[in-house]
Amino acid sequence: MTAMDVSAHMSHLGASAREASRTMAAAPTRAKNQALLNLARLLREAGSPLSAANAQDLNAARAAGLAEPLVDRLKLSPAVIATVAEGCEQLAAMPDPVGEITGVKRRPTGISVGQMRVPLGVFGMIYESRPNVTIEAASLAIKSGNACILRGGSEAFHSNVALWQLVQEALREAGLPEAAVQLVQTTDRAAVGQLIAMPEFVDVIIPRGGKGLIERIANEARVPVIKHLDGNCHTYIDAQVDLEQAVVVTENAKTQKYSPCNATESLLVHAQSAAAFLPRIGAVFAAKGVEMRCCPVARALLAGVPGAQLTEAQESDWSEEYLAPIISIKVVASLDEAITHINRYSSHHTDAILTTHHPSAMRFLREVDSASVMVNASTRFADGFEYGLGAEIGISTDKFHARGPVGLEGLTSMKWVVLGQGEVRQ
Amino acid sequence: MTAMDVSAHMSHLGASAREASRTMAAAPTRAKNQALLNLARLLREAGSPLSAANAQDLNAARAAGLAEPLVDRLKLSPAVIATVAEGCEQLAAMPDPVGEITGVKRRPTGISVGQMRVPLGVFGMIYESRPNVTIEAASLAIKSGNACILRGGSEAFHSNVALWQLVQEALREAGLPEAAVQLVQTTDRAAVGQLIAMPEFVDVIIPRGGKGLIERIANEARVPVIKHLDGNCHTYIDAQVDLEQAVVVTENAKTQKYSPCNATESLLVHAQSAAAFLPRIGAVFAAKGVEMRCCPVARALLAGVPGAQLTEAQESDWSEEYLAPIISIKVVASLDEAITHINRYSSHHTDAILTTHHPSAMRFLREVDSASVMVNASTRFADGFEYGLGAEIGISTDKFHARGPVGLEGLTSMKWVVLGQGEVRQ
Repeated sequence: MTAMDVSAHMSHLGASAREASRTMAAAPTRAKNQALLNLARLLREAGSPLSAANAQDLNAARAAGLAEPLVDRLKLSPAVIATVAEGCEQLAAMPDPVGEITGVKRRPTGISVGQMRVPLGVFGMIYESRPNVTIEAASLAIKSGNACILRGGSEAFHSNVALWQLVQEALREAGLPEAAVQLVQTTDRAAVGQLIAMPEFVDVIIPRGGKGLIERIANEARVPVIKHLDGNCHTYIDAQVDLEQAVVVTENAKTQKYSPCNATESLLVHAQSAAAFLPRIGAVFAAKGVEMRCCPVARALLAGVPGAQLTEAQESDWSEEYLAPIISIKVVASLDEAITHINRYSSHHTDAILTTHHPSAMRFLREVDSASVMVNASTRFADGFEYGLGAEIGISTDKFHARGPVGLEGLTSMKWVVLGQGEVRQ
Repeated sequence: MTAMDVSAHMSHLGASAREASRTMAAAPTRAKNQALLNLARLLREAGSPLSAANAQDLNAARAAGLAEPLVDRLKLSPAVIATVAEGCEQLAAMPDPVGEITGVKRRPTGISVGQMRVPLGVFGMIYESRPNVTIEAASLAIKSGNACILRGGSEAFHSNVALWQLVQEALREAGLPEAAVQLVQTTDRAAVGQLIAMPEFVDVIIPRGGKGLIERIANEARVPVIKHLDGNCHTYIDAQVDLEQAVVVTENAKTQKYSPCNATESLLVHAQSAAAFLPRIGAVFAAKGVEMRCCPVARALLAGVPGAQLTEAQESDWSEEYLAPIISIKVVASLDEAITHINRYSSHHTDAILTTHHPSAMRFLREVDSASVMVNASTRFADGFEYGLGAEIGISTDKFHARGPVGLEGLTSMKWVVLGQGEVRQ
C-alpha cells in the first residue's frame, strides 16, 4: 500500500468500526453469546485452511532465522486452538456486563440517580507475535459490546487474517455487524501511527508487547492508552511470619515460571526474620540455579549456602524486571522501610507481604501503591483468570480507569441515568 | 521568575506534592475531617486580610477594564465565603471514600480477591477566574486523600494566595502535611506547560475553563486529563408524552439559567407531538425572548406564535453550545432519528427524553451515548450536588475513568487486594 492507501484504509476501518460500535452497544445478549459460540465451533472446525495460513507464517519466521522459542509463540497448535475456543465458550457463559444499573438512589428533589454500565465504544489493540490474541481480543470486544480494530505482529499476519475471517463468519451468522471486529490489512508501520491518532473513531488503545513499544505508543497516542509496562514485583517477609509457608510461597512467586510479569523479582526480608529465612530460601534458589543479587546484610547471611550464586546488588537491581532466574534480595529494618522501598522501586504491578501480624497486613494493603497488593499469597496469582474476570485483555499498571488485570468491566464505563417524573431544577 | 526559576519551582512543588500524597493516602479519616472543619472556621474568621487580598484583584481587574460580570466572578463576598465554608463542612460529614473494600470473593484456589478504593495520588488543577475553586479543589483533595497542585487564573492571584494560606493553616492544625495542597506561586504561563508534563509527580490534570484552554491542555498533557468540554445538551419530546409536563420541563431545561453547561441547547420533537407541543413551548420562549433556530417543519408550526423570534437553523446550529437565550429546534420522524441525531451532534454531556412510553425511555437510556441520560427530568439536574456526590471537581465528557459529574470517587481508583493463607499458583 502507498502512504495514501494506508491512510484511506485506516480511516475506512475507523469509520466502519465507529458505526458498528453503535449496533454492538445495543446488541442483544443472546446475539453476542451466539457469535462467541459460533466462533468456538468455527475454530474447532477450521482445519487445513487455518493450518496452512499458520504454516506460511511459521516457514517465513524460520527462513528469517527467528529463534525457535519465538517461532513457538506463533504456532496455532491443536492445544492452542482448543484453549481459545474454550475461552470463547467461557465468555459466552458469563453475565453480560452491559446494561447493569447500580446505585440508583432517590434524591430530595424527587429524581432517582444511578449509573449504567455501557461499552467504551471502539478500542484499538496493538500486539506482537502470538496470533491467539486476535481471538482473545475479538471475543472480549463482542461480549463487552465494543467494536475493535486489531493490529497484530507482521510475523503472524497470515494466521491473523485466517482467524479474523472466522470471526467475520461468526458475527455474520449471529446477525451482528462484521465491522465490529476489524483487522488492519497491512503490515505498514504507518498504520499504527494513524490508529493511535483517530480520536473520532477510536476511544482507547490497548498495546501488548515490550516496554519500548508501549512507551512509544503512550507518548504518541492522542487517545487514552491502557498501559501494561513492566512487572517489578516484590515479596516482603515480615518480622512475624510462618517460615514454612514463606519458603513455599516465595519459591512459587519466583520460580514457578520466570517469564511472566507477575513473577517476583525482588525479595525484601525484615531483619528479625532474615537469619532464619534467608538460608532456607537461599538453598531453594541455589538448587534451582537462581542468581541472588544481595544487599551486604543478606549476602552475609547467605554466604554459607552451598552452591549459592551471590553477587552484590547495584542500585539498578532494585528497579529491574529480570524475567529470568535472578532475584534481588534486601534486608530491611522495618515494615516502613519495606513499604517505602516498594513504593519507590516497584513498577506498581503486584506486591505481596507474607506475615502473621494483622496490623502489618493491613498497613501493607493500604499503603503499598500497586495495582495488586497481596497478603500471604504468591504474586503469580495476579491474573484475570485467577481473579475470576473470565479473561483479560491486559494488565494495567496505571491508576486511571482500569487498574491491574483488565477484563470485560475494564472495557466499559459507567454513565449516569436520571429517572424523573417531570422534576425541574429550582 | 526566570524560566529556570519557574522550572525549579514546579519541580519543587511536584516532588513535595508526591511526598505529601503518601501521607495523605494513609491519613486517618478524623484528621482529614478536622482539616476541613478547621478550614471552614478559618474562612469564616478570615476577615480583612482576605478582603484586602480580594480587593487588590478586584481593583486590578477594574483598572484593566474587565467587564463587570467578569469582575463579579472574582468577588469573595460574605455569601460566597459562607457557601464554600459550608461545602467544607458537608465534605467533612461525608463517608471517607478511601479504604472501602468491595466485591471480595473466594476463588477456587483458596485466595480471596476484592478491590480497595485508594486515592489517585496527585492531581493538578488549572482554572480561571473564580477564586472559590481554590477551596473547592483543596477540600476535595483533602477528603479524597490526594495531594494537589493548584494553578488559578492570574486575575485572582492575590485572592488565591490568601485562600491557600488558610488551607495551609487548616492542614497544619490537623497535623497533616501542608504540601498536600500546593499553589503555583507565579502567573508565568510556562508553569502550566510544566505542570501538565510531570508524570513522575502528577497523576492527572483537571482543567476548568473555556473549551480552548481544555483542548490545548488535553493535546499537550503527558498525563491523563479529566476533560470537561462543551455541553450541547438535548431535550427530546417523544411521540407519547405528557404535554403539560413537557412544557414545564423544557422551559426549565432551557431558561432557568442560560450559562450553565447542562442547559438544553437543542430541542427535538417527534412529528406526532410537534403540532400540539411546539406552539405551546414557542409561546414560552417568545415571552422570555429566546430565539428559535428551526428546521423548516418546526418553523412552519411555530409561525403563528405571536412575538416568536424564528430563524432557519444552519447545519452548525445542531452542534452549537449557545450559553444564551437561543435554542435550535428540529422535528424528527422517529425515536431512531432522535437518537441518531443526538449521538451525532451532542457533546455527550447530558441528554433527556420526555415520554410516557416505557420502551422509548429504555431505548433512550441504553442507546444515547452521553455521560448523563435522563427520562422526564430537566437537563439542568446534571450536577454533582444534585446527584448526591457532595461536591464536584468538574464534569467529564470523556468515557474513560470518570464520566459526568466527578466527585470524591472520581479522584480515587480501585486496586486489587488478594487475601491468602499461603496459596501458590499451580
